[in-house]
Amino acid sequence: MNDTFLRACRCEPTDYTPVWLMRQAGRYMKEYMEIRKRHSFLEMCRTPEIACEVTLQPVDKLNVDAAIIFADILLPLEGMGIKLEFAKNEGPVILNPVRGEKDVAALRVIEPAEDVPYLLEAIRLVKRELEDRIPLIGFSAAPFTLASYIIEGGGSKNYLHAKRLMYGEPELWRRLMDSITSTLIAYVNAQIDAGADAIQIFDSWAGALSPQDYALYVQPHTRRLIEGISGRVPVINFSTGTSAYIDTISQCGGDVVGVDWRIRLDTAWKRIGHGRAIQGNLDPTVLFAPRTEIKRQVETILNMADRRAGHIFNLGHGIIVGTPVDNVKALVDYVHELSAKNR
Amino acid sequence: MNDTFLRACRCEPTDYTPVWLMRQAGRYMKEYMEIRKRHSFLEMCRTPEIACEVTLQPVDKLNVDAAIIFADILLPLEGMGIKLEFAKNEGPVILNPVRGEKDVAALRVIEPAEDVPYLLEAIRLVKRELEDRIPLIGFSAAPFTLASYIIEGGGSKNYLHAKRLMYGEPELWRRLMDSITSTLIAYVNAQIDAGADAIQIFDSWAGALSPQDYALYVQPHTRRLIEGISGRVPVINFSTGTSAYIDTISQCGGDVVGVDWRIRLDTAWKRIGHGRAIQGNLDPTVLFAPRTEIKRQVETILNMADRRAGHIFNLGHGIIVGTPVDNVKALVDYVHELSAKNR
Repeated sequence: MNDTFLRACRCEPTDYTPVWLMRQAGRYMKEYMEIRKRHSFLEMCRTPEIACEVTLQPVDKLNVDAAIIFADILLPLEGMGIKLEFAKNEGPVILNPVRGEKDVAALRVIEPAEDVPYLLEAIRLVKRELEDRIPLIGFSAAPFTLASYIIEGGGSKNYLHAKRLMYGEPELWRRLMDSITSTLIAYVNAQIDAGADAIQIFDSWAGALSPQDYALYVQPHTRRLIEGISGRVPVINFSTGTSAYIDTISQCGGDVVGVDWRIRLDTAWKRIGHGRAIQGNLDPTVLFAPRTEIKRQVETILNMADRRAGHIFNLGHGIIVGTPVDNVKALVDYVHELSAKNR
Repeated sequence: MNDTFLRACRCEPTDYTPVWLMRQAGRYMKEYMEIRKRHSFLEMCRTPEIACEVTLQPVDKLNVDAAIIFADILLPLEGMGIKLEFAKNEGPVILNPVRGEKDVAALRVIEPAEDVPYLLEAIRLVKRELEDRIPLIGFSAAPFTLASYIIEGGGSKNYLHAKRLMYGEPELWRRLMDSITSTLIAYVNAQIDAGADAIQIFDSWAGALSPQDYALYVQPHTRRLIEGISGRVPVINFSTGTSAYIDTISQCGGDVVGVDWRIRLDTAWKRIGHGRAIQGNLDPTVLFAPRTEIKRQVETILNMADRRAGHIFNLGHGIIVGTPVDNVKALVDYVHELSAKNR
């Protein structure tokens, strides 16, 4: 197996810097859109053969060093007792948002084999198809991001409902986060059992929080989730909007800390500590720039990583719809070529 | 005059920590909404008597230590040759967004006395009404935030148009930023001439940028804007989403650096340097919490300021619509009482 990605997760030396891209399987690819025309997003997630096909689309095309299973952070919700719909052209909508005592009490901890069998089957299919060419990453949301979704009932600007519950009913908040965390521990461990070689935890919405609130209301739960996996496979602890307190984030654990583009990679790595691997952190909009600018920005980030073992190149967030595929290919090639030269 | 705010801007000792709140004149107040029912937002900005009345509404009600003129960062656009509309229940919409060479060449540098006479008159009215009770803050956008608005044509998620121009046509970008900065220098100096006692620069959207891009494409222009005012009145250099590179932000200048809530106040102040004043940084959603939690969070921030001269208390962003007015009043009182005790 090309284990460059896994070696970098463990801070072991590699011949070049491994690279994969968040949302590398997605709407910017015409192969993806052809399938998407015939199936809803949830149908794609719930049909193992389709999820497998979509997972593999970018693998050969882009020459990335890791695959990531095609899935959604909201897939555990149904098993928890939450009714979820993906409205046409809108984001996910939750029909019974969690707001009070009773809603929290009604939440179930999922049984992955019963509640997300299609996801586990998709992972097994992908592993078979990959024939150990590159590792496969499984993933889940972090507890705060999932809690915000089910409290707000969808996307949110200020996370008012979530924060009101957090500030106003801290004991209920704790019970909710406990329940979610137990579900997530089961969810990611089942992915590992099915064959996932690494796990990324997405705290996409943690940037709504002050470092004080993060430490008090969120950190213990994210830490418990990561402790519930660790030792089995490498864990990537990723969040956005949290760069100013990346040290607090990194204290939750994870073999790798994923950072967005709002911090210099060298500054971030110093604050996390060089004993841990780091993932990141190109601004996804740079992929709309001329090639010379893409190359320049890749070089800047590689230079900040300073040939140190333990850097995994990635964007600071997912690939944006409309990104030119050729630029994505060029990016992967630049990372491979420029980093090999520096070794 | 109660000059506590101005003294804090200059890092001079004060008897208590001064406090004002971004968007303290706004839709969370029923007095504001009564006027808003009868007038459009732009009408309110363009009628000096109304702008004056709305500016003063929170002054007595809240006991804040500074007033801020009721206006909008987009007011200079009309004079620049940009057609702006506030769509009902939506944000501002620009009918002729700036995308190319010709659009940039067509931009005018405003003549404040001709292009925004209503704003200058509103400032003069407020100064007369205030009778030197507390200082009045004028404000403008920073060049990047204004550039993004006029390129995107309104709000944006990824700032794709703006960044494409920035990456793809750096020389055109420079000319655009130059022109905008010249307008902003004229705009804020006219506010000072009319009586503004301090100026806040809002780079509300700078958080879309990596520190490298900020330093290369934005910093020189924001620095030129601040240099174009400095020495006349205190300048507050405020941005959001930029906490992880607040040192780079602070290098643009400003007597005071305003920070959002995504960083500890003590960490931020250390990175800015204790020779400069700091403003912030309560999460605005905390105003929806029970009083005990509001008080606890105020105390946490005051303790992080550590009785040092030069702290101005504020939120990390504007007051959210729906915020209970009584909680805002309580917040101001807590800041005054708790900080006086610590002196």
